[in-house]
Amino acid sequence: MDGVAAKRRTIVKYRNGQLAGEEDQIALEFPLTVVVNGEEFATIVCTPEYVDELVTGFLASEGVIRVNDDMKGMTIDEDRGFAYVELSSGGLPAKQFYAKRFIGSCCGKSRQFYFYNDAKTAKTIVGGITAKADDCLRLMKALHEQSLDFAATGGLHNAALATPNGIVAIRSDIGRHNALDKLYGYCLRQRVVMKDKLIVFSGRVSSEVLLKVAKMGVSILLSKSAPTTLALDLADELGITVVGFLRGREFNVYTHEHRIVVE
Amino acid sequence: MDGVAAKRRTIVKYRNGQLAGEEDQIALEFPLTVVVNGEEFATIVCTPEYVDELVTGFLASEGVIRVNDDMKGMTIDEDRGFAYVELSSGGLPAKQFYAKRFIGSCCGKSRQFYFYNDAKTAKTIVGGITAKADDCLRLMKALHEQSLDFAATGGLHNAALATPNGIVAIRSDIGRHNALDKLYGYCLRQRVVMKDKLIVFSGRVSSEVLLKVAKMGVSILLSKSAPTTLALDLADELGITVVGFLRGREFNVYTHEHRIVVE
Repeated sequence: MDGVAAKRRTIVKYRNGQLAGEEDQIALEFPLTVVVNGEEFATIVCTPEYVDELVTGFLASEGVIRVNDDMKGMTIDEDRGFAYVELSSGGLPAKQFYAKRFIGSCCGKSRQFYFYNDAKTAKTIVGGITAKADDCLRLMKALHEQSLDFAATGGLHNAALATPNGIVAIRSDIGRHNALDKLYGYCLRQRVVMKDKLIVFSGRVSSEVLLKVAKMGVSILLSKSAPTTLALDLADELGITVVGFLRGREFNVYTHEHRIVVE
Repeated sequence: MDGVAAKRRTIVKYRNGQLAGEEDQIALEFPLTVVVNGEEFATIVCTPEYVDELVTGFLASEGVIRVNDDMKGMTIDEDRGFAYVELSSGGLPAKQFYAKRFIGSCCGKSRQFYFYNDAKTAKTIVGGITAKADDCLRLMKALHEQSLDFAATGGLHNAALATPNGIVAIRSDIGRHNALDKLYGYCLRQRVVMKDKLIVFSGRVSSEVLLKVAKMGVSILLSKSAPTTLALDLADELGITVVGFLRGREFNVYTHEHRIVVE
């Protein structure tokens, strides 16, 4: 069926040495331009589902807002692919630093931060939660089972907010970062406490992904895929436990392994 | 071994119900800021290999240059992660349109284009080449076999320029788009004809990927992964054959299937 995440299309399948027509499901890709206080801020290509959460989480990730009330209003024009946001304070303090390269070690933070906003908004996790190895395996299995759109199109990434006992919310998107931004936006809009949760994620752990998790204040990130060096350097410094290659009955713990408990 | 694509790290592996230390290879992630005519243009996170090709291909993709001679010079500061480019003409005509949302149907192009630069620089393919189904299967196998870094780190994407007979060049990067930009840069710097070639790609086919292929003037894109709706709409319009889910002895042809020949 056609939906907000996928669309039917007739394709030509090569199988057993022959080409034949077949019906398939293709992941929807939708360009969304975010306009803040009347000024074009960025264009995101996304899966057009939970767009209000995506815009909220994206602006929080970029350091434009911290809480939902920092926005006075949001209007979404789905036909044309625009989201119009009015900030409460009137100004747009972060705009001048948006995606600006940051070098040096001021603010007491190391040079792994390459954008000014990240150095300003990423939190160092103190304390955090623990999770049993079995919980980690079970949560990744649950993410997989509850992400049926991915199975249909093969083109979506999934991110879930979870406690060690189970999944709280799942968001999907063609963009890895968008799936996390939707979760972040969900938490901000619903006032969900994040610091006692884990993130369960289908995609690779790049520095951008790690920084989003840090901004949310989450202490454990479980991923099905591989991390990068820069993501792990940031995780070392920010106190985040990164678990990767979580497949079947195995996984790798890359940083702050004290939070993963074997009974 | 440590190299430009991967770095060793001691990790903790969970296997058979136990945690144990182990050596692993992690994909390197490197922030590179591109400065054009003294002005900060963009920051790319990348695998720091073939950086000159990456910068060249990236600027061509963004519509800032068309040929290598549009740059008077390029200096790369690998320690600090900066690339300084001087343009031949002095000006930077595309800057004002960079990542600017494009709406409407001027230039005779449809509204699937969402950035002004893309509508201006993407070429419609006329003619193009054909490939046998067996060639498609063999080329994806060759990409896999010749991409050993990916196997080691699990964190790299690979893109190859190929003829139906075999692979001409492979480039790898933690970013899907960067792998393609490196190939594009390679072709521009070495003056390699692109229109009689195919692209073989490990990543998903989003609109950005499709537009890069269109800008290169390549008529057939072979991917191991899934496409998005917007990528296929653009491929329909720009005359590009998209082959996806190329795994084992099967694949899907999504657009312009006349170029894929079964004997």
